[in-house]
Amino acid sequence: MAQHPNRQVVLRRRPTGLLQPGDTELASHPAPQPVDGEALVRTTYVGVDAAVRTWLDDRPGYLPPVQPGEVVRAAGVGEVVESRCAAYQVGDVVATLCGFQEYVLIRDDLFTTPVPRGADQLSMISVYCGTGATAYFGMMDIGKPQPGQTVVVSAAAGATGSLAGQIAKVAGARVIGIAGGPPKCRAVIEDFGFDGCIDYRAGELGNALKQHCPRGVDVYFDNVGGPILDAVLGRLAPHARVVLCGVISSYLSGHHPGPANYVNLLSKTALMQGFNTLDKWDRFDEAFAALKRWEQQGQLVHREHVFSGIESCVDALNGMLTGANIGKAVVKIAEPTPSPQPTAASRGAALGGCPSSGDT
Amino acid sequence: MAQHPNRQVVLRRRPTGLLQPGDTELASHPAPQPVDGEALVRTTYVGVDAAVRTWLDDRPGYLPPVQPGEVVRAAGVGEVVESRCAAYQVGDVVATLCGFQEYVLIRDDLFTTPVPRGADQLSMISVYCGTGATAYFGMMDIGKPQPGQTVVVSAAAGATGSLAGQIAKVAGARVIGIAGGPPKCRAVIEDFGFDGCIDYRAGELGNALKQHCPRGVDVYFDNVGGPILDAVLGRLAPHARVVLCGVISSYLSGHHPGPANYVNLLSKTALMQGFNTLDKWDRFDEAFAALKRWEQQGQLVHREHVFSGIESCVDALNGMLTGANIGKAVVKIAEPTPSPQPTAASRGAALGGCPSSGDT
Repeated sequence: MAQHPNRQVVLRRRPTGLLQPGDTELASHPAPQPVDGEALVRTTYVGVDAAVRTWLDDRPGYLPPVQPGEVVRAAGVGEVVESRCAAYQVGDVVATLCGFQEYVLIRDDLFTTPVPRGADQLSMISVYCGTGATAYFGMMDIGKPQPGQTVVVSAAAGATGSLAGQIAKVAGARVIGIAGGPPKCRAVIEDFGFDGCIDYRAGELGNALKQHCPRGVDVYFDNVGGPILDAVLGRLAPHARVVLCGVISSYLSGHHPGPANYVNLLSKTALMQGFNTLDKWDRFDEAFAALKRWEQQGQLVHREHVFSGIESCVDALNGMLTGANIGKAVVKIAEPTPSPQPTAASRGAALGGCPSSGDT
Repeated sequence: MAQHPNRQVVLRRRPTGLLQPGDTELASHPAPQPVDGEALVRTTYVGVDAAVRTWLDDRPGYLPPVQPGEVVRAAGVGEVVESRCAAYQVGDVVATLCGFQEYVLIRDDLFTTPVPRGADQLSMISVYCGTGATAYFGMMDIGKPQPGQTVVVSAAAGATGSLAGQIAKVAGARVIGIAGGPPKCRAVIEDFGFDGCIDYRAGELGNALKQHCPRGVDVYFDNVGGPILDAVLGRLAPHARVVLCGVISSYLSGHHPGPANYVNLLSKTALMQGFNTLDKWDRFDEAFAALKRWEQQGQLVHREHVFSGIESCVDALNGMLTGANIGKAVVKIAEPTPSPQPTAASRGAALGGCPSSGDT
């Protein structure tokens, strides 16, 4: 079979803060040929998550750092175009770590799952990939919101935050978002149905939290770290749960100010816990079934900010890091083949999703 | 019955850092007369815990702050000398919130429990009061050490730390203490049986942790906060548990530097949790039974630093806060009546203990 040209965003040197020209390069190579046990996937959408930025730093994490010369890692969705692997047939749609590139080789392994028949590929990456699972496991397993409790979510207009808050609403909690600027705060309330939203740029956050959370904060889903985390820790209710999902505030500066109010974890007998969505791999079906049900019942909506073409990946990443978008930032790498189409899932595989991180 | 003179350490003004002359006053009043449902207890020993200092600040906690004019609150042990309460008979030994005073009124309530027959009153306050329960619940319920895992305990020569480390040893863990100065480090290893001890005054703590904990820290039992907490957070193993038990470093300065390395809770999918021993009241029997068994099997030893007389309470508190003692700081207020003696416990009450806090 003829080799496809494969454009890739390759890391050239480690960025400091936002990506600068020269940190990455748009290279083009022939797409690799699958050998036995492999299949070749044409990327349709890649997700632009904060995790993408964390993988560019030379810091150990749950996945190794991307090395200079390697393709920038990112979760995405694509279609199988060649297969030498029993698990996949040409035309199958899969969620996998596509990376910022047009083609990727996959195996039948942890990081690749089939997408169920008829699933919209854009929804798939926005909700049914790591983002939804991250919001679900973070909120349900650590946050454990109870009816009537007060839940606060930062980066509330973002991909993970908007879902996390809606999941807490389903659980019967009163949900207050924190976001930057009136358009986002409006979206948090009007689109995502939160009970209130604090514009952290508009005034003293401690006072706003006191006003919006008169009985304290029972659950805090933290995507940002920094002074916002510190302010919410200062307002914890007894037995509060703080879900550590991301540290957006530090991805740019590389500096992580410590939250002095962590002492409230002691006086309020509270907990603060990080998590990694991949650890919950064996329960992804549970998460996706719940998310699907809530979406069908109108209790869960999602929004996407779609960038077009592989050339826009770096701008999309910088934009996500500076809070430029509402909902999930996604780059459309190629037009999906119109559905209905055969999928591996339709041949009996379980409802699955693609991996992501505990990061937003 | 004739009224006993009752000397009391009364708070006059809120201290800043260590207690200064004039912050408290040694007053003398007639001991109160019990009314129906009450009994009068003659204090024998009071424990000098970090919690005592926290109660002097005007900060809400699980117990209200001590107000100027009130007796300094402290857990202790004493003997019933008058009773108008069915639960107690004259001669019973009880553990209760005695305060820094010679006599205290008790009721049959949450904060008072009988001491079992034959119990040594000094051991009682050192292990079987709040200190032992705090070490037990913090280590067992949050720390959950597994055989072969690495456990680090700060203020390891102190009352709670020394017990917490020994409990982790019983669970099969490798236990490294952190303490200040060679005599304490020697006691941590030789008396309390830890596998190693880092003298935080002797060099760069991060390097020492790397050397003593090559595979990272699975459990950290934190009594001190500040830079030591931050250093250990920088060395967490995946899925680590950080038990927040106290913030001694901040009791003196009033300043709580935030631990910048809290971000490792995210990258290591770890948790950090505060607790309040009083929340576990219904499981105190379990804790005391385990502690007793381990002590009888020679797996648990305790040491006391005993000060004499109510006049020494303030010095004992300042000394404990500056790390002057090894083991539990205790003030002997009065000579216990020689045992054997009747106790409420011997009349069928469960093995119990006195309350304390999540603080050291």
